[in-house]
Amino acid sequence: MTRIVNLALGQLGPIARADSRAQVVKRLCALMREAHASGAHLIVYPELALTTFFPRWYIEDEAELDSFFEREMPGPDTLPLFELSRELGVGFYLGYAELAEEGGRRQRYNTSILVDRGGRIVGRYRKVHLPGHREHEPWRRFQHLEKRYFTAGDGFGVNEAFGGKVGMALCNDRRWPETYRVMGLQGVEMVLIGYNTPVHNAPAPAHDDLSLFHNQLSLQAGAYQNGTWVAGVAKAGMEEGVDSIGGSCVVAPSGEVVARCVTKDDELALARCDLDFCAVYKRTTFNFDLHRQPHAYGMIVARKGETLMADGSAVAG
Amino acid sequence: MTRIVNLALGQLGPIARADSRAQVVKRLCALMREAHASGAHLIVYPELALTTFFPRWYIEDEAELDSFFEREMPGPDTLPLFELSRELGVGFYLGYAELAEEGGRRQRYNTSILVDRGGRIVGRYRKVHLPGHREHEPWRRFQHLEKRYFTAGDGFGVNEAFGGKVGMALCNDRRWPETYRVMGLQGVEMVLIGYNTPVHNAPAPAHDDLSLFHNQLSLQAGAYQNGTWVAGVAKAGMEEGVDSIGGSCVVAPSGEVVARCVTKDDELALARCDLDFCAVYKRTTFNFDLHRQPHAYGMIVARKGETLMADGSAVAG
Repeated sequence: MTRIVNLALGQLGPIARADSRAQVVKRLCALMREAHASGAHLIVYPELALTTFFPRWYIEDEAELDSFFEREMPGPDTLPLFELSRELGVGFYLGYAELAEEGGRRQRYNTSILVDRGGRIVGRYRKVHLPGHREHEPWRRFQHLEKRYFTAGDGFGVNEAFGGKVGMALCNDRRWPETYRVMGLQGVEMVLIGYNTPVHNAPAPAHDDLSLFHNQLSLQAGAYQNGTWVAGVAKAGMEEGVDSIGGSCVVAPSGEVVARCVTKDDELALARCDLDFCAVYKRTTFNFDLHRQPHAYGMIVARKGETLMADGSAVAG
Repeated sequence: MTRIVNLALGQLGPIARADSRAQVVKRLCALMREAHASGAHLIVYPELALTTFFPRWYIEDEAELDSFFEREMPGPDTLPLFELSRELGVGFYLGYAELAEEGGRRQRYNTSILVDRGGRIVGRYRKVHLPGHREHEPWRRFQHLEKRYFTAGDGFGVNEAFGGKVGMALCNDRRWPETYRVMGLQGVEMVLIGYNTPVHNAPAPAHDDLSLFHNQLSLQAGAYQNGTWVAGVAKAGMEEGVDSIGGSCVVAPSGEVVARCVTKDDELALARCDLDFCAVYKRTTFNFDLHRQPHAYGMIVARKGETLMADGSAVAG
């Protein structure tokens, strides 16, 4: 089995609220065909890649909210993507809103799957770091209600796939070094991350000019500090009146950006990722077994934030 | 008390093995006078700032090794720096090799202290992430025997000083996101880091060209991901035949570099650091109480590296 992964970034431009799943899947398939024609083994799509980014709206009607979620994967609308994957031998990472039935309870997750070159789901990840807020905040130009609509996932696993160890994360996860470290401790060699990142950050508008910089800084640090490839893929551009960053890129274990999208539309970028290139970092500067010092890290797990209750539990700040 | 800290980077060029403490302290004092003349409240010196970087040599003679260590701080040679600090009202961060007597046992640490504007030591830090190796490795062009010569410190504290919360780290600590996070969880607003970083990395010479990039990437990520000011200060240049990087800089809580040294000699750079600027990050994107998910981080403390013994202890890789 080869240790070279020809990776395609399948960046998406905007998806309108009125667009059907079938229309979106057609765009995904077009990108996959292009990726295949360029020799790609794996294509990475964004977070919540099947619909418009609906957490920007306060939706009270449960049925309306459910309309953005997938009850099965593949389902009738997404099956063509899996069939094309099998036909072309191109695997994929796809983010979508998942409606799950667990022990008789309905749970909503912000989810991604990893699909191998035979069109089989080989990994599933549910977003851990849900950003935004829980209650309707009408003062914002638009909402970011991920904390309302989704349940947080359990953690970060690593999948044996594409000849190596492949992990997944989603959007806000990429800003948290814990995300990469937990996967790094499992030997991850490639981390795939879809995102939807509005340029405008309502609680901190002064950061808007830095959105692209912060995106890239986070991806680069996560890659370098764990000796892993990292791919970040945007849904970009002006979607239902809200502008989101592009900046999809692939970062090598050296922290260097080796591929990048340059538009805010549907766009493909390609990188030749040698998974063996991780080892020179994992065996030297970031040889965890030699150099990490967990005796000094206890607070990272013991505390949520700065403020602690007397019983050690955290207080929302 | 003001929340503006006028910060000076007191980068040093090489220190020869033959240079006396008195000669070095004279250079430190000259930088402090310059810093004072430029309105600085606090000057940051490098790691092991009183002698040449002796871990590059395999030293078998205990007395010779001890000659690089300080038995008291201040001692006769360093007292002039403390006196000048008090006279000018300029605090400082200083890295040095510490020989401590603890319960009748001699311990050697790679240490830094924080001294307030009255010349009083208000914080002490002992390096946690000791890089390099423990045994003599003659195949290297030069040694990096920090694991042999020093005992690792306990952890990362934060000091109430200079109107805010000031933390310390040393050199290799800066590459580990855990370093900044443990201090971030204590509300740190400014992290001071001295370093000696040879351009040449013997186990991974292919990284030599990236030494400056990796330095800055680590400092920027640590600052942004914790909403804190970070200052990194080098001992730079060609010292006893070994070239070390410069690149001393100050990073804002936004992750932006706001001041930088441009030589590999004794050089001052200045930054006006508003500690209140941390809050806009700590209260929004990096509001730990709202957004961190410790339930998913357990492995960070439970594991040292990838490989575990059956009893859960780590194996050197």
